[in-house]
Amino acid sequence: MARVRVTRRVHFSAAHRLGREDWSQERNLRTFGECARTNWHGHNYELDVTVAGSVDPDLGFVMDLKDLKQLAEERVAAELDHRNLNVDVPWLGDLNPTTENLVVAIWRRLAGALPDGVTLERLVLWETPRNYVEFTGEGLE
Amino acid sequence: MARVRVTRRVHFSAAHRLGREDWSQERNLRTFGECARTNWHGHNYELDVTVAGSVDPDLGFVMDLKDLKQLAEERVAAELDHRNLNVDVPWLGDLNPTTENLVVAIWRRLAGALPDGVTLERLVLWETPRNYVEFTGEGLE
Amino acid sequence: MARVRVTRRVHFSAAHRLGREDWSQERNLRTFGECARTNWHGHNYELDVTVAGSVDPDLGFVMDLKDLKQLAEERVAAELDHRNLNVDVPWLGDLNPTTENLVVAIWRRLAGALPDGVTLERLVLWETPRNYVEFTGEGLE
Amino acid sequence: MARVRVTRRVHFSAAHRLGREDWSQERNLRTFGECARTNWHGHNYELDVTVAGSVDPDLGFVMDLKDLKQLAEERVAAELDHRNLNVDVPWLGDLNPTTENLVVAIWRRLAGALPDGVTLERLVLWETPRNYVEFTGEGLE
Amino acid sequence: MARVRVTRRVHFSAAHRLGREDWSQERNLRTFGECARTNWHGHNYELDVTVAGSVDPDLGFVMDLKDLKQLAEERVAAELDHRNLNVDVPWLGDLNPTTENLVVAIWRRLAGALPDGVTLERLVLWETPRNYVEFTGEGLE
Amino acid sequence: MARVRVTRRVHFSAAHRLGREDWSQERNLRTFGECARTNWHGHNYELDVTVAGSVDPDLGFVMDLKDLKQLAEERVAAELDHRNLNVDVPWLGDLNPTTENLVVAIWRRLAGALPDGVTLERLVLWETPRNYVEFTGEGLE
Repeated sequence: MARVRVTRRVHFSAAHRLGREDWSQERNLRTFGECARTNWHGHNYELDVTVAGSVDPDLGFVMDLKDLKQLAEERVAAELDHRNLNVDVPWLGDLNPTTENLVVAIWRRLAGALPDGVTLERLVLWETPRNYVEFTGEGLE
Repeated sequence: MARVRVTRRVHFSAAHRLGREDWSQERNLRTFGECARTNWHGHNYELDVTVAGSVDPDLGFVMDLKDLKQLAEERVAAELDHRNLNVDVPWLGDLNPTTENLVVAIWRRLAGALPDGVTLERLVLWETPRNYVEFTGEGLE
Repeated sequence: MARVRVTRRVHFSAAHRLGREDWSQERNLRTFGECARTNWHGHNYELDVTVAGSVDPDLGFVMDLKDLKQLAEERVAAELDHRNLNVDVPWLGDLNPTTENLVVAIWRRLAGALPDGVTLERLVLWETPRNYVEFTGEGLE
Repeated sequence: MARVRVTRRVHFSAAHRLGREDWSQERNLRTFGECARTNWHGHNYELDVTVAGSVDPDLGFVMDLKDLKQLAEERVAAELDHRNLNVDVPWLGDLNPTTENLVVAIWRRLAGALPDGVTLERLVLWETPRNYVEFTGEGLE
Repeated sequence: MARVRVTRRVHFSAAHRLGREDWSQERNLRTFGECARTNWHGHNYELDVTVAGSVDPDLGFVMDLKDLKQLAEERVAAELDHRNLNVDVPWLGDLNPTTENLVVAIWRRLAGALPDGVTLERLVLWETPRNYVEFTGEGLE
Repeated sequence: MARVRVTRRVHFSAAHRLGREDWSQERNLRTFGECARTNWHGHNYELDVTVAGSVDPDLGFVMDLKDLKQLAEERVAAELDHRNLNVDVPWLGDLNPTTENLVVAIWRRLAGALPDGVTLERLVLWETPRNYVEFTGEGLE
């Protein structure tokens, strides 16, 4: 049976800053530059969630796109939208919210929540229209 | 020799609805929701056709982009543009026109039509600016 | 007080065909070409709704963007989304659904529904990413 | 002589929240909803700066686009980028940073800084890809 | 009768450089910077052609969009595409091809070619995704 | 450790034409069509540079995005921007500047310049918004 990838894009707007809790602000600024400024900045993030699976011969779906949208919005976008990523999100803890760290955290949040036979294939997280990260689960223990 | 992927995007505007001929409309509506409404709806589809091959050392081409464009437009876009995907297209038959089923049907339509040494690598079919499917031929008998 | 324009974009996917009920299909095809084909085609429409007004000194709003979004979605997008514009929409009647006719009909649907002191300034209706119409109410009796 | 409008787009990423200093947070939340959350959120803003003037017959320019870019970046984008709009920007003071209030403040910042014979014609400020405000100086005392 | 604006976008890819034939290359470089480099550079231009008129009550059209597209492509895009704007285009003569000068020249080329009752309303010429010029015929003798 | 891909997009505007120095212009025109015209044409190129590596547990970075941007701009974009790709760029030599040949040349220019532990994963080079090439280093001796 044909194996197809299906992608849904969701959106969230959030504040963050880069830096480690256990480092001085001076060291954070030296390491992360303007991204470490004390009073936060923010972005319009776009997240492309891609799943893969066989096309169900009865339905013509890998999975219902409405279910994929709901999953991505409820488990991720609604939790991050209009929030501060350093402070407000329990499942991010005190993570330094680089896009790399965010995409891995979002992967853990979504990977176990898919229907049987459907796998999480790839996440693409856009921080601005000119930079993004991709994760396929590689190297995750 | 370097192996490069080359992509051309083509466009078509079409009507469709989701549903199976052999199911009652009540069952189609229960399964496919608003996408199964009787009187059709439609989309501006974008199709990215990606081929791969060695770069011809004389020409600097994997294949002439004008030929790829012509192939994608003549064999796919012109056949689907300003049509009803459930009714008007002989090579779709009575396929339930989900994006998954469409992208597999388009693959079959293009895979055998490429020049020697050039392979069809990937199709990406956008139904809206926020959802798309990808197919690489995986699982096709 | 500063007068500012505020725009919200909403989306709907719909089927239609061009043609007049009181003309033969032969005449419709001669006049409207492939757009008049019997079995419909469709588009992803984008509608930009622009209102204007003074900035409320207490709130910093011309009007609450959430209210504008709700108005545009409830009175327009939800009524047209996943519908056939020739057949399914009572307030379009048997209008020939050219983008020009649609944008004027949408104007009538929105102009009277705005809060006091806020005026409907402009509608932009995109039928494809390469063509759109604009209407500012000019010439409407 | 022909009068032409010239536009340059600049970008900034910033944090903000909606609310008034002189209102309780409870009242701010009731009025501004999720936009008033205590710990900020943020956006990728795009600002289109449009100037107008006669085309200089010697140069073929209304004004040098590099100068327009520099002006927009130095006086606006660099001052707002990677900042908190409620806290960090002296020329915003304690303004409630709605897009309406922001676009008027940016207008005041740019209007007097243009070369002789060139006028500030229009500002468009995008907060997300689906909503923006426009200001032409109307109503400004 | 309602008066509506209709826009069609066309594309052309061209080479150019800024500079005056009657100035030394040294003076051109001092004035126009990298844009004056001897061996040309180039752009993907997008041109939005906007016409306005009453909506024909029989057809629902201001003018047939296919005719507008054909006009813009034949009289402008096909003449400029894959050309050098300084050298190859008789109706540009030895114009210094700034976007301001180009948009005025394109206006002259299109304004007289429209059907009765339809007026050329606005041209928008994008040189890159971040800068564009607009012309409405203002100041043209 | 999680392995993530990080992408930065950079821009350049350049002139070129397709053709071989050792072929007659007649043969070049027969082979490359309008792309071989004598007086050049040009494009707004977009280049997506994707690197991959483990996420540094101290920093949360695969590599600092500012360094990646600087590398892509200094070694590639600044060298090609506002240039003629056939004539002006020493490291392109007399290469026939098809997008396939360009992307391979850019790969050679970037692959050795990355920090330890970070690999060049993929280049995507857009010549227009509707066609692009991808290269992953495959087949390079």
